[in-house]
Amino acid sequence: MKESDHRPRHTRNMQASLPLIDGLLHPQHPSTLRAMLDDMHPADIAGILGDLPLDQRLQVWALVRPEHEGEILLAVPDAVRDSLIAGMERQALGAAVRRLDIDKLAGLAPNLPQGVIRDVFKSLSIEDRERLRSAMSYSKGSVGALMDFNMIPIRDNVSLGVVSRYLRRFDELPDHTDQIFVVDRDDRLIGVLPLNRIVINGPEAMVGTLMLTDTIRLHPEEKADQTAQTFGRYDLVSAPVVDEDGKLVGRVTMNAVLDYMRTESENDLLTQAGLLKGEDIFASAWESAKNRWVWLALNLCAAFFASRVIGTFEASIEKFVALATLMPIVAGIAGNSASQTTAIIRSLALDRITRASATRVLIKELSISGLNGLAWGGVAGLFAYYLYHSFTLGLVMVSAMSLNLMVGALAGLLIPVTMHKLGRDPGIGSNVLLTAITNSGGFFIFLGLATVFLSP
Amino acid sequence: MKESDHRPRHTRNMQASLPLIDGLLHPQHPSTLRAMLDDMHPADIAGILGDLPLDQRLQVWALVRPEHEGEILLAVPDAVRDSLIAGMERQALGAAVRRLDIDKLAGLAPNLPQGVIRDVFKSLSIEDRERLRSAMSYSKGSVGALMDFNMIPIRDNVSLGVVSRYLRRFDELPDHTDQIFVVDRDDRLIGVLPLNRIVINGPEAMVGTLMLTDTIRLHPEEKADQTAQTFGRYDLVSAPVVDEDGKLVGRVTMNAVLDYMRTESENDLLTQAGLLKGEDIFASAWESAKNRWVWLALNLCAAFFASRVIGTFEASIEKFVALATLMPIVAGIAGNSASQTTAIIRSLALDRITRASATRVLIKELSISGLNGLAWGGVAGLFAYYLYHSFTLGLVMVSAMSLNLMVGALAGLLIPVTMHKLGRDPGIGSNVLLTAITNSGGFFIFLGLATVFLSP
Repeated sequence: MKESDHRPRHTRNMQASLPLIDGLLHPQHPSTLRAMLDDMHPADIAGILGDLPLDQRLQVWALVRPEHEGEILLAVPDAVRDSLIAGMERQALGAAVRRLDIDKLAGLAPNLPQGVIRDVFKSLSIEDRERLRSAMSYSKGSVGALMDFNMIPIRDNVSLGVVSRYLRRFDELPDHTDQIFVVDRDDRLIGVLPLNRIVINGPEAMVGTLMLTDTIRLHPEEKADQTAQTFGRYDLVSAPVVDEDGKLVGRVTMNAVLDYMRTESENDLLTQAGLLKGEDIFASAWESAKNRWVWLALNLCAAFFASRVIGTFEASIEKFVALATLMPIVAGIAGNSASQTTAIIRSLALDRITRASATRVLIKELSISGLNGLAWGGVAGLFAYYLYHSFTLGLVMVSAMSLNLMVGALAGLLIPVTMHKLGRDPGIGSNVLLTAITNSGGFFIFLGLATVFLSP
Repeated sequence: MKESDHRPRHTRNMQASLPLIDGLLHPQHPSTLRAMLDDMHPADIAGILGDLPLDQRLQVWALVRPEHEGEILLAVPDAVRDSLIAGMERQALGAAVRRLDIDKLAGLAPNLPQGVIRDVFKSLSIEDRERLRSAMSYSKGSVGALMDFNMIPIRDNVSLGVVSRYLRRFDELPDHTDQIFVVDRDDRLIGVLPLNRIVINGPEAMVGTLMLTDTIRLHPEEKADQTAQTFGRYDLVSAPVVDEDGKLVGRVTMNAVLDYMRTESENDLLTQAGLLKGEDIFASAWESAKNRWVWLALNLCAAFFASRVIGTFEASIEKFVALATLMPIVAGIAGNSASQTTAIIRSLALDRITRASATRVLIKELSISGLNGLAWGGVAGLFAYYLYHSFTLGLVMVSAMSLNLMVGALAGLLIPVTMHKLGRDPGIGSNVLLTAITNSGGFFIFLGLATVFLSP
């Protein structure tokens, strides 16, 4: 129960602090700067470190109080953390992370050098070693990885007076303690007692009669996504985690869920754009370029393929150069429409699409793209007719747009659904695949139809 | 303080419930179904309603307990809510929403018919009318719109014993009451008293000595985004909201912040894909098509423009048809690279980019695209040389790729930064603009260079 008081003691406007720090770094004012940092909340220092170029970042980092280092390492983005850890000695790093709660230590462990983990491990009590081992064993994205061990267990056959006396032995309750957990003599969870109820009932009331028994219980192997939904749906602040025997092994707090959700949604946006991970704004261009290469390389392959599709029809294009001018329209709009379909499919919780509703969604998406094909394909057809005075070319345009929009809808629906069936996140490849299909498909359909119907 | 007990009494697996409900709907079992619904948490019923086709949805809705209707309306997505409200009579709707807390009523108000709002307004106490009016006056995305009125104010010159007696008059404390608020005789906030501290201290301790005075205070006009960051950074469960005189006017809970964040991140993903709003999976194809038209229309305009850029070079393409085959590569990869730049820029908090770091970021993004241009442009150049045996064509390809990647990086950086400077969200138009620039730019640069260097 090493949790410190997390309440912001001095909340500063970070934007205001930055120029101040900037000024303090240049002249020789380490003591003023140190005093200022001592006064700040670790989370605020973390924010500032991320905004500083590497040299200044390390200068500030050297002035931070050792007892804050662990929490700051937890709070900074991955890329910034790596830059801080790289500059630290094994002993200093070990001392910093040893101050953290076991669950947080476990979260940080993948970023730490092996030697440091070994040092820390040796310094722990047997119970904490066991906890650290189990916490590190849970896979990312599971409840086990979100859980902490700051639960307060009590027995059901005592009065609130006894509970109060027990709680008064704490200097401070762990953050987000909205309820304490009622267990039997074998540590099995039998209910929860909200702090609320302790406060609004007299000391003579019994825990057994006040506790809630019909409550959410999480399991360490459950998916964190599911838990995030549960927290949101039932407005929970904390929830107990029990093992397969019903024994209380930990708790999950809303704060852990919030952190998880924020990371997930950031990763989602980054993955959508084909980035492997977030980037430190001050990392080298070379580092960043590597972060972006996989997606560009995949896209380049898709583009080469599409280019060869066009190459097949070079004879037709030579005869009628308008085809080259018009073909990007067919490919592009279908790509846009397909990504709309994917966004809609992903905005529905995928596991809630049943076999019956899947058919319905498929028919609907095909109808929408049919409608859009006629509407916007019609506009594009008129555009083509107006420019090249060929009625057949206009018709080819409408047909190709409609067909390719439907191909796009099919791909936009099937890719996320298949990924989900295979139990995989829609990763960095799905957007590339979608674009590849709508591009190559668009070129093939448009140039193919044109070759058939426009050849003299 | 109408807040009911939000704890899940009966948590069911929703996926398991769906087929059950499906079965119960077909035969004549309304009473069984009604009993089942009575047992369920409103949030679970809300989930199920969203998964049912319109006719079944309305059948189930008719069986829901009137006292749950308000909460369910709050919990369903916008599109589903509209379908439920459309089928309700003015009186029933008024009765349903009148049971809600004022802040939730205010959140629902924009979706309600005017007549219903008038009815409800008339039925409120003067204090509640005033609160409703003020709650409805705050703009979406402000703290005022997130805040609720379930704060418990106490005075500082009393003992915990007195506070406990006062709290025992409540049947239940409002959800997410982790602290109560200490005010002076003019209702000005002077501190907060965490429930934690009530529990771990004896009845004789005084509020004035135990309260925390150096605490976060929100203001109704503040941005909700800022508040979400504050909650995440300091791990808050609730925070007081004060007006310009320092008077306590409400509180924000983590739950409201979580809801806000979830909505924002969903909207973000939808906007990225060019959708005006989320869609009801069972809405008509026509409704959905309209939701997607703005973006497709904008993209079509951009595509027409790009098509005319190609049109300018038709003479060159006629002479050398390979240009038509290769040009989509140049345009496409720059588009991919530009969207990576935008994602990185957006993943940094934009208001934290200072003038100094902006230059740094610009130089870095240009370097990255230069690197990528040489690397992937080189590959594309070899591809072109291998296919068409023209060394000059290969060089044109490398140059065009490098130049267009840099154009893309510039656009990918400047569009979000400019949007942010203008105080606007990166809306539905920015992706279109980005694609327009990289497409038209790519065609122009590649075909232009080819025309200059490849003409015989």
